[in-house]
Amino acid sequence: MSNRQIFLADIPQGKLGHEHFVIREADRPCPAEGEVLLRTLYISLDAASRAWMQGATYRAGLKVGDLMAGMALAEVVESRSSQLAVGDLVFAETGWQIFAAVPAGNLVKLPRIEPLTHLISVYGVPGLTAYFGSLECGRLKAGQTVVISAAAGAVGSIAGQIARIKGCRTVGIAGGAVKCDLITRKFGFDASIDYKAGNIVDNLRAECPDGIDVYFDNTGGDILEACLFNMARYGRIVCCGAVSQYDRSASGAGPQGVPGMVIIRSLTLQGFLLSDFLDQQERAIADLKGWVDSGQLTVREEVIDGFDRLPAALVGLLEGENIGKRMVRVA
Amino acid sequence: MSNRQIFLADIPQGKLGHEHFVIREADRPCPAEGEVLLRTLYISLDAASRAWMQGATYRAGLKVGDLMAGMALAEVVESRSSQLAVGDLVFAETGWQIFAAVPAGNLVKLPRIEPLTHLISVYGVPGLTAYFGSLECGRLKAGQTVVISAAAGAVGSIAGQIARIKGCRTVGIAGGAVKCDLITRKFGFDASIDYKAGNIVDNLRAECPDGIDVYFDNTGGDILEACLFNMARYGRIVCCGAVSQYDRSASGAGPQGVPGMVIIRSLTLQGFLLSDFLDQQERAIADLKGWVDSGQLTVREEVIDGFDRLPAALVGLLEGENIGKRMVRVA
Repeated sequence: MSNRQIFLADIPQGKLGHEHFVIREADRPCPAEGEVLLRTLYISLDAASRAWMQGATYRAGLKVGDLMAGMALAEVVESRSSQLAVGDLVFAETGWQIFAAVPAGNLVKLPRIEPLTHLISVYGVPGLTAYFGSLECGRLKAGQTVVISAAAGAVGSIAGQIARIKGCRTVGIAGGAVKCDLITRKFGFDASIDYKAGNIVDNLRAECPDGIDVYFDNTGGDILEACLFNMARYGRIVCCGAVSQYDRSASGAGPQGVPGMVIIRSLTLQGFLLSDFLDQQERAIADLKGWVDSGQLTVREEVIDGFDRLPAALVGLLEGENIGKRMVRVA
Repeated sequence: MSNRQIFLADIPQGKLGHEHFVIREADRPCPAEGEVLLRTLYISLDAASRAWMQGATYRAGLKVGDLMAGMALAEVVESRSSQLAVGDLVFAETGWQIFAAVPAGNLVKLPRIEPLTHLISVYGVPGLTAYFGSLECGRLKAGQTVVISAAAGAVGSIAGQIARIKGCRTVGIAGGAVKCDLITRKFGFDASIDYKAGNIVDNLRAECPDGIDVYFDNTGGDILEACLFNMARYGRIVCCGAVSQYDRSASGAGPQGVPGMVIIRSLTLQGFLLSDFLDQQERAIADLKGWVDSGQLTVREEVIDGFDRLPAALVGLLEGENIGKRMVRVA
């Protein structure tokens, strides 16, 4: 079986489309000494991928002609390292391709937990991001009012459930009636706000009459601004993502209320990356697994079949199509 | 001696001017039971006064016809309360007038420390604001790079010196060569940046090659934005004031980089009000007095003589005239 790769044919100036990608056949790479040959099983789709096309973030920016970057759950099919054996599972930066030769040094063997897709959702980046964002940055306390944006998304749906498990009142913001119905019915949020339906500031005021204690921000932009003006005194804003800002040429002005509202309400905004909490990952996965196994935490995944559907899957993700964690099954 | 009062004749739409105030003679008020009659000695001038004209902040907004609000160091000249005696000194919300009758219940008798002006500067709101902002919100550590905006101002000049005392490298941002010269020569900052002279982003990069660990923000706006893009990983921004946003009709858009830079550099922004730290005030004043008495902390005050010059003193403050704490001596 030969390799198949997806390259960035162009850098989008406005919205991302299929035309910005090109698919090519290639030879299977040969791992060098110290490397392993990986076969991707599930490639993760992440809104932040679009931000990589805007320039440097927590990683170097993508350029025209680059292999599209991305993380995947992958299996070792050939090993030239004593650290990993054929059949081992890893989560690796493989890029969008079926076979990748990568140095074994940075890879960690994953347990073969079923379903394997959970390694990419609740026990992977989104689950851990929701966990550390809520508990380490948000410092949730029982009885608090917690608002989560992109609440039907991979991170938001888990963050809302963690807040509920910790005894908080949870209000989810999502786009459209379908998602809003789902977050209360399936993910157990106490209330939902459809940001596409109307005045989000008034809705926030109605749902949070005593103000927002913790706002878990996955969107930035107008929703962040609306929440800023509805924060309770000493409120905390967890800056996790800014999906509203990614699918465009350059990031616009920031939200009104910075620093005015931050000062007069004594607010704290805290940004983080998952890598800040690497040393606590084991405990986090144990907690998450406990909640999943006991039925307290519902995991929703969207598995799309077929490597060639990666571009469409990412374009749709940025348009807000997905509910829960979206990934592409390669094989 | 009769009373003299300054009222807000109009709400400014753009910049504040003398025409927005009107001075009137009035009778001395008679204190009711439980009240004291105060005579103002020094009325404090604060940039935030202009924000009170924009609407509600941490206090109700000012309306046309209101007595101009303000804090003063004042002496009790008549007492109908057992809590305070004639001759006692207090710091009180008197408004802009020579005599004020106020409830004694909320007032705290101040020690008669000489010079009395220090009760309004280093041992008053600006000194305590600099202290808690730097130490409680900024959490300064020796060896860190600390940037302070409005560094020649009442709060900034003290915040910069506290950072130096704590072993940090201090970079002050101020407007014009005179202030920039002063902050290095008189207040002991390691470096200064004149924001009126040119590209502040490049200057910050040059002065802080490893990034800013703590930014003490007194200005908001463009300077906050420039600092956001120069923060070091895990940097902290102390949101103390937003003087660049006050002397205008409505606050504009917020800084770019919120939430983008906050996320990718794992930054924390923390706002605060002095009232958050009331219970720690005694320790703070003791620390500040120790530094003043030992010559480590230089206090600069601008005392303007004459009650009727209050409007001009505030207009000039908002134009950036002052160096150190500005106040008007009433008597």
